[in-house]
Amino acid sequence: MRIEILCTGDEVLTGKIVNSNFSYMSQKLEDVGLSVIWGTTVGDDRERLLEAFRLASSRADAVIVNGGLGPTVDDLSQEIAAKAAGVELVLNQEWFAKMEEFFTRRGRAMPPNNKKQAMLPSTAEILDNPIGTACGFALDIGKARFFFTPGVPRELRRMLEEQIIPRLLAKVGRSVTIHLKRFHSYGLGESHVDTLLTGIEEMAPDGSIKLGFRAHYPQLETKLLVRGDDMDDVRRKLAPVEAEVRKRVGNFILAEDDQTLESVVLQALLSSGSTLAIAESFTSGQVAARIAHLAGAETVFRRGAVARDLAHVRAAVGLEPKSVAATPETAREIAEALRGHAGASHALAVLVDLDEGADRLEFGGNIAIAVASEGETVTRQSRLLGGREWVRLGAVEMGLDCLRRYLQRLPVDEKIDFEKR
Amino acid sequence: MRIEILCTGDEVLTGKIVNSNFSYMSQKLEDVGLSVIWGTTVGDDRERLLEAFRLASSRADAVIVNGGLGPTVDDLSQEIAAKAAGVELVLNQEWFAKMEEFFTRRGRAMPPNNKKQAMLPSTAEILDNPIGTACGFALDIGKARFFFTPGVPRELRRMLEEQIIPRLLAKVGRSVTIHLKRFHSYGLGESHVDTLLTGIEEMAPDGSIKLGFRAHYPQLETKLLVRGDDMDDVRRKLAPVEAEVRKRVGNFILAEDDQTLESVVLQALLSSGSTLAIAESFTSGQVAARIAHLAGAETVFRRGAVARDLAHVRAAVGLEPKSVAATPETAREIAEALRGHAGASHALAVLVDLDEGADRLEFGGNIAIAVASEGETVTRQSRLLGGREWVRLGAVEMGLDCLRRYLQRLPVDEKIDFEKR
Repeated sequence: MRIEILCTGDEVLTGKIVNSNFSYMSQKLEDVGLSVIWGTTVGDDRERLLEAFRLASSRADAVIVNGGLGPTVDDLSQEIAAKAAGVELVLNQEWFAKMEEFFTRRGRAMPPNNKKQAMLPSTAEILDNPIGTACGFALDIGKARFFFTPGVPRELRRMLEEQIIPRLLAKVGRSVTIHLKRFHSYGLGESHVDTLLTGIEEMAPDGSIKLGFRAHYPQLETKLLVRGDDMDDVRRKLAPVEAEVRKRVGNFILAEDDQTLESVVLQALLSSGSTLAIAESFTSGQVAARIAHLAGAETVFRRGAVARDLAHVRAAVGLEPKSVAATPETAREIAEALRGHAGASHALAVLVDLDEGADRLEFGGNIAIAVASEGETVTRQSRLLGGREWVRLGAVEMGLDCLRRYLQRLPVDEKIDFEKR
Repeated sequence: MRIEILCTGDEVLTGKIVNSNFSYMSQKLEDVGLSVIWGTTVGDDRERLLEAFRLASSRADAVIVNGGLGPTVDDLSQEIAAKAAGVELVLNQEWFAKMEEFFTRRGRAMPPNNKKQAMLPSTAEILDNPIGTACGFALDIGKARFFFTPGVPRELRRMLEEQIIPRLLAKVGRSVTIHLKRFHSYGLGESHVDTLLTGIEEMAPDGSIKLGFRAHYPQLETKLLVRGDDMDDVRRKLAPVEAEVRKRVGNFILAEDDQTLESVVLQALLSSGSTLAIAESFTSGQVAARIAHLAGAETVFRRGAVARDLAHVRAAVGLEPKSVAATPETAREIAEALRGHAGASHALAVLVDLDEGADRLEFGGNIAIAVASEGETVTRQSRLLGGREWVRLGAVEMGLDCLRRYLQRLPVDEKIDFEKR
């Protein structure tokens, strides 16, 4: 089945909004073996919307349209859908009543301009939106089935999963199973991993495994797209290849599939009944913010101490507030003091001495990391080059990855591609 | 000039990467009065790439292609560009030498598969990439000028600003000036602000001002797109309208144009020689991470204390670690203690009692906020509904906005649309 995604709205076309809805939809469809073949973005412009609807309907079997269902004057999806399908817009009493109830339940009066959201093409089939006032709907335009979805991400997500994907799967008779196997790593560049994995595709018969990458600093995702007759066939083809990837990329693999670095760390702490405290400087709370809010972290995360000045970091963990550099010794002293101060079994210190001045080619930061547990402290020192944000993101990742390595009893100081030798 | 953006790559098409490059490019072009009329996304697929290149070249005057210039087998942009233009791929010696120098400078050997990045269509004009190995280039396909850019965001950004925008502006003779005026607010929904601003477009002659919104929870951006003969004409038309927007949306406007909530707060603290400490619970370091890493914050931000458990928050600021609820009194006590403990002139406490259990319609969190300064502490209590992430994002924003309001001598407890009454 040829599926297209059509994103509408000046906000998206002019870049005021980053189009994360597109990637979300596409990814969810991939997960169930459906592929998007084409993506289009147009603004809140009647003529171009109509042109885009017509182009998509001539190419695709199914088209998911996102956005333009809101209450304001620049929301045009219902109007243009009706025009493209050659039908009238009519007030949907059922949806209008739902909207009134929605506002009542939240203790608010419905603004008059929200009524527009219940005006639907007469041939539309309603796609329920249990958490918002934008009404989803489906209808045929030409030979393609169009699915109209709200721009608000959580409303879209629920509608896609509960309403649209079941309808698409019912439409399609799948003879092939597609599975995406993913490995997440930190510290090796895309070219490096590509070289490490030379010949890996040839381990599977008939080009049934395709290797790909997603470079997403500071992490790299290595992807194996597997085609098979069914899930058993997929597993058979994948098994030797995934084992080989684990062998070649080794300790750098920090998580697989839907796992994240922070979920792996949290799980390791949870399963050993450990607790965690974090001290950080230039990363400014970002290390703690990656892990401490997760469900389950309330029993694991004890305390975070943040300061830009290392003397203040020292003061926050009960040490004499003297001026120090971000060295392994400093990180060790802070992690050990923090561990006692916060009453945690494990303490992580991520300290950065950022270069002075503006971003430039050789701009970077010296990073010192320590992980302290009962009777043992390990340290890591590194220098990352790149702009302020680059160094900050890298330091957050390196800090969490050192903790991951420590908890998995791997060396914490394997050199990475991104650091100055 | 009709400009299109064509994003390539399985990573983008399958949603493994959120396409922030598209929004970045489109926004930068808008800023200089150029508009993107159409966006297309296709994967690493020879046939569809060729089709997309041909379609875009038949519609547009200029096409910016993003991605596909990397060293790996799935990077196809140079090959398909050559094919679409009907020319050969040749090794560009100049770029090859630059790449070798690039690796040498970083103390790394160039992997052999990087050579592919110096293979360019014979008619290509090089677009310099001073910070990466992907070679940008421009060439004509049909009647359109194509600009090929790397997928790595910071490389793309630099190439767009230094190489492509000057070429596009040289191509175009502008007779009209376009200016985008933006207001950022927190706490009022899009419909609400739309209603508040009824009739605002009619204050300017000949439809020269267009009102639009970007709902980006928890903030809302209100946009006035102004057309005029020149910048003076734009300013004349805009002046009465922007004054009226400020009057109607009032205290809820937290920043304008490129300002952010955190930059406004930082500026207010800097200009009064103040210092800041932050205590937070479920927001887990995210409040501190919004402001403490900014340039200039090193002299302002003293300390952040993070814990999921309010007893641990108390302990971190030197109070007796007893179990407490997130009430205004708790927030007041913590903010005042933190202020002394960290030696800061101002302290912000953002505390959340999150509901237990899984996300559901009525799931929410009770939020208590306090801002303490010398001799004065103000508090705010609220209940936000929505999922875990919704509550967390809302609490971060509400905390920073309370601080902004306090520093600007505005009431910190004006009710917002998102909170339970």
